[in-house]
Amino acid sequence: MLSVKAKIQSLRKAMQTESVQACIIPSTDPHISEYTPDRWKTRAWISGFTGSAGTVVITQDKAGLWTDSRYFLQAEVQLNDTGIDLYKTGLPETPSIFDWIASELKAGDCIGIEGDVYAASEAKTLIDFFSGKNLKVRSDFAPCDALWEGRPPIPAHPAFVLPENFTGKSCRKKIEEVMAAVKKNQADMTILAALDAIAWLFNIRGNDVKYNPVCVSYAAVSENETVLFIPPEKLTQKVSDYLQQEGVSVAGYDTITEYIRKIPVGTGVLIAPAKINYGLYSILAENCKVKEIDVHPVDALKGVKNETEIAGVRNAMLKDGVALVKFLIDLEKTLTNNEALTELDVEEKLRAYRSEQTGYFGESFGTIAGYGPHGAIVHYEATAESNATIRPDGILLIDSGAQYLDGTTDITRTVATGNVSEAVKRNFTNVLKGHIQLALSVFPAGTVGMQLDVLARRELWKSGQNFLHGVGHGIGCFLNVHEGPQSIRMNYNPTALEPGMLTSNEPGLYLAGEYGIRIENLLLTVKVKTTDFGDFYAFETLTLCPIDVRLIDFSLLSPEEIDWLNAYHQKVDQLLSPMLSTEEAAWLKERTKGIGASDKTVRIATETDSSELPVSI
Amino acid sequence: MLSVKAKIQSLRKAMQTESVQACIIPSTDPHISEYTPDRWKTRAWISGFTGSAGTVVITQDKAGLWTDSRYFLQAEVQLNDTGIDLYKTGLPETPSIFDWIASELKAGDCIGIEGDVYAASEAKTLIDFFSGKNLKVRSDFAPCDALWEGRPPIPAHPAFVLPENFTGKSCRKKIEEVMAAVKKNQADMTILAALDAIAWLFNIRGNDVKYNPVCVSYAAVSENETVLFIPPEKLTQKVSDYLQQEGVSVAGYDTITEYIRKIPVGTGVLIAPAKINYGLYSILAENCKVKEIDVHPVDALKGVKNETEIAGVRNAMLKDGVALVKFLIDLEKTLTNNEALTELDVEEKLRAYRSEQTGYFGESFGTIAGYGPHGAIVHYEATAESNATIRPDGILLIDSGAQYLDGTTDITRTVATGNVSEAVKRNFTNVLKGHIQLALSVFPAGTVGMQLDVLARRELWKSGQNFLHGVGHGIGCFLNVHEGPQSIRMNYNPTALEPGMLTSNEPGLYLAGEYGIRIENLLLTVKVKTTDFGDFYAFETLTLCPIDVRLIDFSLLSPEEIDWLNAYHQKVDQLLSPMLSTEEAAWLKERTKGIGASDKTVRIATETDSSELPVSI
Repeated sequence: MLSVKAKIQSLRKAMQTESVQACIIPSTDPHISEYTPDRWKTRAWISGFTGSAGTVVITQDKAGLWTDSRYFLQAEVQLNDTGIDLYKTGLPETPSIFDWIASELKAGDCIGIEGDVYAASEAKTLIDFFSGKNLKVRSDFAPCDALWEGRPPIPAHPAFVLPENFTGKSCRKKIEEVMAAVKKNQADMTILAALDAIAWLFNIRGNDVKYNPVCVSYAAVSENETVLFIPPEKLTQKVSDYLQQEGVSVAGYDTITEYIRKIPVGTGVLIAPAKINYGLYSILAENCKVKEIDVHPVDALKGVKNETEIAGVRNAMLKDGVALVKFLIDLEKTLTNNEALTELDVEEKLRAYRSEQTGYFGESFGTIAGYGPHGAIVHYEATAESNATIRPDGILLIDSGAQYLDGTTDITRTVATGNVSEAVKRNFTNVLKGHIQLALSVFPAGTVGMQLDVLARRELWKSGQNFLHGVGHGIGCFLNVHEGPQSIRMNYNPTALEPGMLTSNEPGLYLAGEYGIRIENLLLTVKVKTTDFGDFYAFETLTLCPIDVRLIDFSLLSPEEIDWLNAYHQKVDQLLSPMLSTEEAAWLKERTKGIGASDKTVRIATETDSSELPVSI
Repeated sequence: MLSVKAKIQSLRKAMQTESVQACIIPSTDPHISEYTPDRWKTRAWISGFTGSAGTVVITQDKAGLWTDSRYFLQAEVQLNDTGIDLYKTGLPETPSIFDWIASELKAGDCIGIEGDVYAASEAKTLIDFFSGKNLKVRSDFAPCDALWEGRPPIPAHPAFVLPENFTGKSCRKKIEEVMAAVKKNQADMTILAALDAIAWLFNIRGNDVKYNPVCVSYAAVSENETVLFIPPEKLTQKVSDYLQQEGVSVAGYDTITEYIRKIPVGTGVLIAPAKINYGLYSILAENCKVKEIDVHPVDALKGVKNETEIAGVRNAMLKDGVALVKFLIDLEKTLTNNEALTELDVEEKLRAYRSEQTGYFGESFGTIAGYGPHGAIVHYEATAESNATIRPDGILLIDSGAQYLDGTTDITRTVATGNVSEAVKRNFTNVLKGHIQLALSVFPAGTVGMQLDVLARRELWKSGQNFLHGVGHGIGCFLNVHEGPQSIRMNYNPTALEPGMLTSNEPGLYLAGEYGIRIENLLLTVKVKTTDFGDFYAFETLTLCPIDVRLIDFSLLSPEEIDWLNAYHQKVDQLLSPMLSTEEAAWLKERTKGIGASDKTVRIATETDSSELPVSI
């Protein structure tokens, strides 16, 4: 295997041949995936840096890797003796990639990118920027194709059909709805590249991407035909028969390019520039009337869960809750018995308890088990090197989730592993207050996430604290753990929260070098009222797992917040107990018993009970 | 004087001569003012409809007026026998003006507008829309110029200089700062048309627009020169000398057009398309490199008040508070004595008490005194016809403000005129809770109004209620009562709240046919803390006037809210009492006495006390 230096040497030669003075190698793939198959880990191949986020830029005399604070240490180690300099993004002294390239090149020079692994929106921004600096951009520069010996193939895992008792809506019906939206947007057809969008539309799943049950493919939907572009080895007879029955044509994965070239001149093609690669976009733009939209109809439809999907998620939550309770009991016993326990053990135990549940398919993302200071690293993932031993002292942040055939879960609990200080309790309680205030919110139709975000942060802000990630992301049904179109963040996102949307509620607090706190449940948006002022929505919390009351300073909770906590715990106990052993149920009863009861009536919301306020627990 | 029918007849003739098939007459003026001088009330002249908002469209065979629900009744009366149909905006069956015109005209037809009275941003949207419908737009169609006999001239009131002890910054210094921002935006110069922006920049004021102390003018600022385009009769010797001393050239108001035509080709001109008329924009766009910006640097600088301005506002608040207390005592006595009192009497009394204060210049907008059902009409202004008698039963909403040389005020109080029901108290208390929660908020640098808006609405939303206006608008210093760039609304506005910004806090609730509630104070954004998480800001409430505790259901207030109310009332009492008679001070003491004291410490924030949380009262 070639050294990084040798690979860069070959790349520089190819750049000279092609008169390219700077080459950018990002982390994305042709489907603009958050998690990419190994085939497209070009940046890791050329640089040796294996973190999930990072961009390499190569010129004839310099090479740089830009990555964020999560990976500073790892990058320093992996880039050692490669000739690649580390540029730490987020630090004031670090130049942006664009500015750095502009300062390194001279007018008329050319920048090479592989348009196929760039979102059209990003490539257009890049081209705009550099053309303003008198620099050319070639978007078909993909020399690594030839240089990368032993490049992994496209994953060959078979696709499978997810039956309608899980999806709640046939592929045929979904295609009809998508075409209605395409026409409403004055277009004739649409092209899809995002793997979760394709999996949702065709009601198929796969195993091509770690944590995401999707299969590598493209799709085209028009009035006349729906085509799925997929490596033929993925299609079992069953899947082929199913697709035919749903009226879907099948074509080879690579034939998408040729297909797009043949679209009649002037055809209106609807695309979301952030969800299609620039390679396909460029071909479309040559002949077609490209109609750009921020939120693709497939993402809009996928974001609103139907009754079957919601029932599935409820079921997945029961299973996940049982697994988590068993895990928490195990954790407590291990610590009480002074047995050795590491962060990687926590991951393994969680996997084991979840895999006992029916319909378990795998993890929905890499478990974050961060003990003490590791908890303060927002995207921490324990490695053999970092793996900390958990002691009966301090707090442990555990963010994990599973893929079940009936739903995807994502839950964070922060648990005390021993006695904790008053300061820890105060901070945990402030995070909890934010979590509860968001869970309790009621809002009119049309409200967007940015409007509600403050509810989860207000107590922290009062203390001069904050957390720099979003409060809420969408989540798929047996699909990607992160999806759009809605979000609850400090940033503006124009998508309104609609009944049927599933969104996380995960405020946190991270004190570098000390510990991290996060409390995450999933929320279902439900309609609760229609008044003279219109429709009002609220959240129903679907996740079922006790919140560690040993970390709460009850004096800081309002009566309303105590009521929420008691009602939530009562619901967790009632729904999970029947699925637990006597011993386990006793533990859960103890951990969910009412505290600091206020004089207000406590109500439990269930799925059949959404006609009256409040249903926010 | 011609009848409306005759005027429309003449207009149609002019349209035929010019081959214009539809003519749009809006409510704006060349300075895109909220309040326009009579000269530009073309829509009122042609239609007879005198409401503040409305657009007339004339074709050869139809004529329509579009206005909103505030004016449905008035428009019906005023349009009677004019041949103009009323189109009620906001109703589902009412077509938009654009759609209506598109359906009335045929391909190739021409729409005439007077570009000089359209914001460039709006005219561009209009032209875009109609060009997509194969309709032409002529933006130089101004036939009313010739048809309008006895059209009022441009107001001839003299301008005057506002000294630096009020403005806190010289004109010369402001011009320097504006030019720095112009250059930072890669432009060479800027053109200003908004009257408040010009008044601020030059530290001059005038009397040309009702409620707004501005003078009709334009301005150009470049590296070489700053030119004020103003009718010469407005310039006293003192103002002329002052402008010369500040390095400002003066030119005739109408010469702006010629000036712009002579700007060298390729000059970069910074403009805010929503703040310049389309007439000037079109000329600029011919030869110059127009650099468009959403928030003009003048508006950005004007929005952040300096120390002198803040001290002035504090002083204006003392005076306004004294006037309001005297008014409230008078109101109470009048009602107790069963003396006749109408909504117009309230306006008159408020004006009288305010005019006793030093530096009083006039009202900052038309007082809204709405008794009972009139309070539910958000922009109600009592007329001789509507004028209601106030009885010692129910509630009265009073929204009013004044222009003082040292500051502009805007305050709303809702007061009980007799016993009120529990429902009224509950609703008032929910509005008050929103007001207090916003006043108490603490937020990191970079926070925009949309993020905080929910704090003022949350309690109402829980009850399935809402109010459809913004929570907060910016306010000038002895300038317009409504200004940007910041706002606190359900809509997104990317301008962050900065220390020194002055913003209203005015949640409300309106029950049609019953009553209206609004509580409005002005908030100053102040920096309160710098932590590892950055800078944190909060609000200091500057308005000084008791909130009617007779309308509060104390059982609904949290301890934190009661603390805020007590501390606010204590501050009002302490600051206003020294300026009141013994009898008045006794009344104020009674109306501001602490209620339902909680066990928390109450702190009073003052201007010298912004280093520690909380300073939000």
